[in-house]
Amino acid sequence: MEQLRIPGPTPCPPEVLQAMTRQMINHRGEEYGRLQDEVIGALKKIFQTKNDVLLLTGAGTGGMEAAVVNMLSPGDTVLAVSIGVFGERFAAIARTFGAEVIPLDFEQGKPADPDAVRRALRDYPRVKAVLVTHNETSTGVTNDLKSLSAAVKEFDKLLMVDAVSSLGSINLPVDDWHCDVAISGSQKGWMVPPGMAFVSVSPEGWRAHQQAKMPRFYWDFTKAKNNAEKKQTPWTPAVSVVYALATSLKMMLAEGIDNIFARHARVTRIARDGVRSLGLPLLAADGCASHTVTAVGPFNGPDVGKLLKIMLAEHQTVLASGQGKLAGKIFRIGHLGWVHEDDIRQVLASLEAALPKAGFRA
Amino acid sequence: MEQLRIPGPTPCPPEVLQAMTRQMINHRGEEYGRLQDEVIGALKKIFQTKNDVLLLTGAGTGGMEAAVVNMLSPGDTVLAVSIGVFGERFAAIARTFGAEVIPLDFEQGKPADPDAVRRALRDYPRVKAVLVTHNETSTGVTNDLKSLSAAVKEFDKLLMVDAVSSLGSINLPVDDWHCDVAISGSQKGWMVPPGMAFVSVSPEGWRAHQQAKMPRFYWDFTKAKNNAEKKQTPWTPAVSVVYALATSLKMMLAEGIDNIFARHARVTRIARDGVRSLGLPLLAADGCASHTVTAVGPFNGPDVGKLLKIMLAEHQTVLASGQGKLAGKIFRIGHLGWVHEDDIRQVLASLEAALPKAGFRA
Repeated sequence: MEQLRIPGPTPCPPEVLQAMTRQMINHRGEEYGRLQDEVIGALKKIFQTKNDVLLLTGAGTGGMEAAVVNMLSPGDTVLAVSIGVFGERFAAIARTFGAEVIPLDFEQGKPADPDAVRRALRDYPRVKAVLVTHNETSTGVTNDLKSLSAAVKEFDKLLMVDAVSSLGSINLPVDDWHCDVAISGSQKGWMVPPGMAFVSVSPEGWRAHQQAKMPRFYWDFTKAKNNAEKKQTPWTPAVSVVYALATSLKMMLAEGIDNIFARHARVTRIARDGVRSLGLPLLAADGCASHTVTAVGPFNGPDVGKLLKIMLAEHQTVLASGQGKLAGKIFRIGHLGWVHEDDIRQVLASLEAALPKAGFRA
Repeated sequence: MEQLRIPGPTPCPPEVLQAMTRQMINHRGEEYGRLQDEVIGALKKIFQTKNDVLLLTGAGTGGMEAAVVNMLSPGDTVLAVSIGVFGERFAAIARTFGAEVIPLDFEQGKPADPDAVRRALRDYPRVKAVLVTHNETSTGVTNDLKSLSAAVKEFDKLLMVDAVSSLGSINLPVDDWHCDVAISGSQKGWMVPPGMAFVSVSPEGWRAHQQAKMPRFYWDFTKAKNNAEKKQTPWTPAVSVVYALATSLKMMLAEGIDNIFARHARVTRIARDGVRSLGLPLLAADGCASHTVTAVGPFNGPDVGKLLKIMLAEHQTVLASGQGKLAGKIFRIGHLGWVHEDDIRQVLASLEAALPKAGFRA
């Protein structure tokens, strides 16, 4: 079987794929309503939140756009904390819809520094919201969100968190860490196909929403909330993804979120130890290494593209290339969602065989 | 088996549901690229277009929002031709993003009058684009789009068509009828689950897009087009819906689009003849009756809600209620996508048994 080791879509368990063979039902009927309520209830447990969690039909980036247009007005100032491609994307969305964006960029492969956030918030008291990536897929770095949140909340700012690739895989207690908005996407740790985004909104987030003037229709949180009260979505939901999700969430709650987080930590340790024994560099330091994706590199000499081609052709293993400035310089091993220790051991064994063929020195 | 007879989601053929059990693949890899190209090629045949067709992950309403924000600038004037709830929705989206909307509303159950469009375009020469619903799901009326297009093109305006519930079921030659943008949704005539929208863009549409200043990120057509050239989408696509679509499009092309349109026409005739023999009123006249949904009513006395409950509880048949001003006054029989003559005969037989129980006079 192919080893799909990219940071989403993740492979789906067979039970989840099978759930999608269920015939369509009326998305305005009671049966769907029960299903949606069950799914939202389970999502809240894994988000560790009492906040509303809204179901949106779209990719994770759609969830990010939804967060921006529902929380902000044109002309609002936001501090955009970025440690890579997805941090830049969050900033670009805010800029597109008319926010004044103050970028706070950190070196690729490093996490954001809470004290730098404090300094920026002191320098720019007009900042209304802080945009943070919890887990930066492009560099394999997880931010210390708890500390970043403490910094943001010292200044009483809105905290908007891109948790697309962390929620469900890495501990993120949304309420304890005061996330006003936290966004995830179905194809990540949730082990289901892409097509839905989930967004939690805190009471403070709802207050901001009442004032927010960016134009919105499809992504409007008021419409989503009013419809959720009727156990519906404002627009036709991706019903088959909801079926898949109902199954995967049961599996996740049966495994237990602490066990899921521990499994992702174990898998990460195996990946990082293995990469080190192969003599390859790791982009992120141990203290900030993501538990959902491991970035290997940077390389200057050897041909990373060739390595990925050999991994695919000879080992049926799909790894991810670098994005943005890291294109051609790193490769990434995704290990989120439906992943176990042996999957990563197999990837490492394949890498060991492929590296010399691709011209990497052992 | 349940008879899901709402105007989308439509039931999916077993082959289509089965296609979704396929494991996830890399949405940035060659295998996905081939699949996307194949799907887009087939969509173009059914859209009867040489224009670009873009794949968007979202509901049909997302596709409508995408059309608006990619074609228009705040302050642009649009003529919004409305014959029901979905016409009003198209207008509301345009208004939300800052267009000046001139509403041209027609009586519910009636089609739009091309001469009224001509008069409006003469009265408001500043109109840049005309928004039209091809098939109005809420009333079961199909507009005479060919004639409406002729009126719009006499004045050289942009023609933006909500074809969500018609494309793939009712003849709509996008190029011959000069649609600058035509939008459809996966859960309609395409016989696949909801989660994707398809939008065609004409060369004139692309020229309008270059000037259009409404804010857009997730829905941006330039990003979609640039990525389509690499056989990708800008954001992670709903991969399992693409699998389903690849299967359903093969089935559709094997049946032949003329045969599909003829089947929808036959099914409609059976539905309308049957409704008449049951002594019930039809909202739309024969000349404008939709081939994807039949609206029955309006009723003033009998309890439509009770009828739909009996149809569900005793006949496992899901019909749709009225929307907007027609809520409680009509019910609707969806017959699009995976539907055959016997499905509708069964619905009619169930209706015959249910009507007296619900207090409808025979």
